[in-house]
Amino acid sequence: MLDYSTGAALTIEHVREAHERIRPHIRRTPVLTSDHLDALTGATLFFKCENLQEPGAFKVRGACNAVFGLDDGAAAKGVATHSSGNHASCLSYAAMLRGIPCNVVMPRTAPQAKKDTVRRYGGRITECDPSTSSREETFARVQAETGGDFVHPYNDPRVIAGQATCSLELLEQTGGLDAVIAPIGGGGMISGTCLTVSNLAPETAIYAAEPEQADDAFRSFKAGHIIADDAPETIADGLLVPLKDNTWYFVKTHVTDIFTASEQEIIEAMKLTWKHLRVVMEPSSAVPLATILKHPGVFKGKRVGVIITGGNVDLDKLPWLKW
Amino acid sequence: MLDYSTGAALTIEHVREAHERIRPHIRRTPVLTSDHLDALTGATLFFKCENLQEPGAFKVRGACNAVFGLDDGAAAKGVATHSSGNHASCLSYAAMLRGIPCNVVMPRTAPQAKKDTVRRYGGRITECDPSTSSREETFARVQAETGGDFVHPYNDPRVIAGQATCSLELLEQTGGLDAVIAPIGGGGMISGTCLTVSNLAPETAIYAAEPEQADDAFRSFKAGHIIADDAPETIADGLLVPLKDNTWYFVKTHVTDIFTASEQEIIEAMKLTWKHLRVVMEPSSAVPLATILKHPGVFKGKRVGVIITGGNVDLDKLPWLKW
Repeated sequence: MLDYSTGAALTIEHVREAHERIRPHIRRTPVLTSDHLDALTGATLFFKCENLQEPGAFKVRGACNAVFGLDDGAAAKGVATHSSGNHASCLSYAAMLRGIPCNVVMPRTAPQAKKDTVRRYGGRITECDPSTSSREETFARVQAETGGDFVHPYNDPRVIAGQATCSLELLEQTGGLDAVIAPIGGGGMISGTCLTVSNLAPETAIYAAEPEQADDAFRSFKAGHIIADDAPETIADGLLVPLKDNTWYFVKTHVTDIFTASEQEIIEAMKLTWKHLRVVMEPSSAVPLATILKHPGVFKGKRVGVIITGGNVDLDKLPWLKW
Repeated sequence: MLDYSTGAALTIEHVREAHERIRPHIRRTPVLTSDHLDALTGATLFFKCENLQEPGAFKVRGACNAVFGLDDGAAAKGVATHSSGNHASCLSYAAMLRGIPCNVVMPRTAPQAKKDTVRRYGGRITECDPSTSSREETFARVQAETGGDFVHPYNDPRVIAGQATCSLELLEQTGGLDAVIAPIGGGGMISGTCLTVSNLAPETAIYAAEPEQADDAFRSFKAGHIIADDAPETIADGLLVPLKDNTWYFVKTHVTDIFTASEQEIIEAMKLTWKHLRVVMEPSSAVPLATILKHPGVFKGKRVGVIITGGNVDLDKLPWLKW
């Protein structure tokens, strides 16, 4: 029985166990390349397309690792979380695959499309007011009523081990990289990346990419302690949340550097990817390419893995079009 | 030396030769699936994503087969074609890879973006008036001046053999199918599909999908002879051209049936694919899914290969948005 108590307790064995566990339930997503984007950046880019997971985001990995790691007794009570983003739909999806309940606390102001997706996967939504106190109060009540296992969107070590399987595949699919870069919000994907890459490819640099307008991880990294912002606003709506203890552990221990990009740079990188890689991805997923374009000296001549984290976007409101 | 004189002369050996020849220059594109689209259609759909070729369309296969099949003497004079679509950019791309000239005759009214793409790949554009007579006259002059090898967008047997490699991969990647469906315009992709599938999987049904507003192949199929329309108008701008002798041979000999879809149905299928498969594809590529949704009885319970032919689309003018 592996120790899942903290981020620091995680080993490459956790990642291998997670990969075996979730393999039947997730996709081994393709790695795409673009001669044109390579020419633009001077690097050789390998895009790991987690937007092509069935529920459209890498978060299905961590969610499946948590859901399918439960023993039958715990599983019967289901799982619960608070999230208004991809974690909510991916946890609902994983619970649907196992046939167990999933309770999600979500602000009543969350977009209808996100609520619809959670419900399509059988998730039960309890609405709260859009404040931290209301969310915590509502969540405590829901959890007390259902006894469901709490799966935090990113600070849960089971979730981090699940996200770590993405880099495991990326390293296999590319045969090795000089650097890997992923967006950073709460730090779940970056922590998983650190866990795998620091063990299997310690010479590979690990970069995180963050919106300038929600640069709490960048400032935390420079300051040496967690800084959490109250209510950042950015088009990269998957990257609003702050680091927590288990993800901060990986960021401070293994991340090489954190780069930031402006809203305009993110939108331009998003459109570039849609045009030349021809995949639909969220603004959050465009932040790495935006920072690569901004720091060509760091990446030039290098083999760089770029994790495209998600593809759930409102096709009626594309940010490069005027409204 | 294989016989490339007519469509009827093509054999599975031509396809295997083409695949060996073009393999270093094209991508083995991924086959994507969507539980959601399967649930909507009642079928098991395997989407072969030719939109993920570097120049964004399957036409790179036929273009590379023609370009890399030339002996050095012929190659030195380059290649030439008339096209305002994906064939022009894919032939330019193939010629660039071999380092030979590519001359393209294109109406002066063609979209600037298409001209830019051809030029980005080193293609030389000669503009003509937007009429058949001007195009033919201009093309004859260009070809006489350059001596370039004429590569027809779809009626050239080398091109058909190249397009046929797409189904070769699709059959390998899926392990067999009950049916395969592709859009039909001039018939290059469908002919290649017929060539491969009739040889390697003769029990697999072959369907073609066409816009109602450019249904000349549908009417040709029903009438038993080629019907060519003068100037059809449809959002599926890759499917405007008529069948010719070599493609008509395959359509009349091997196609199981041709289905059509309305403009609205095409747009809805396009948006559905962007949303749930999360790839960027052209309206032309959405016609197969539109017809599957329209004829559920034909496809229900079947394993169906769906060829997504291209992903070059103006991201500033998406058809489901009002302008």
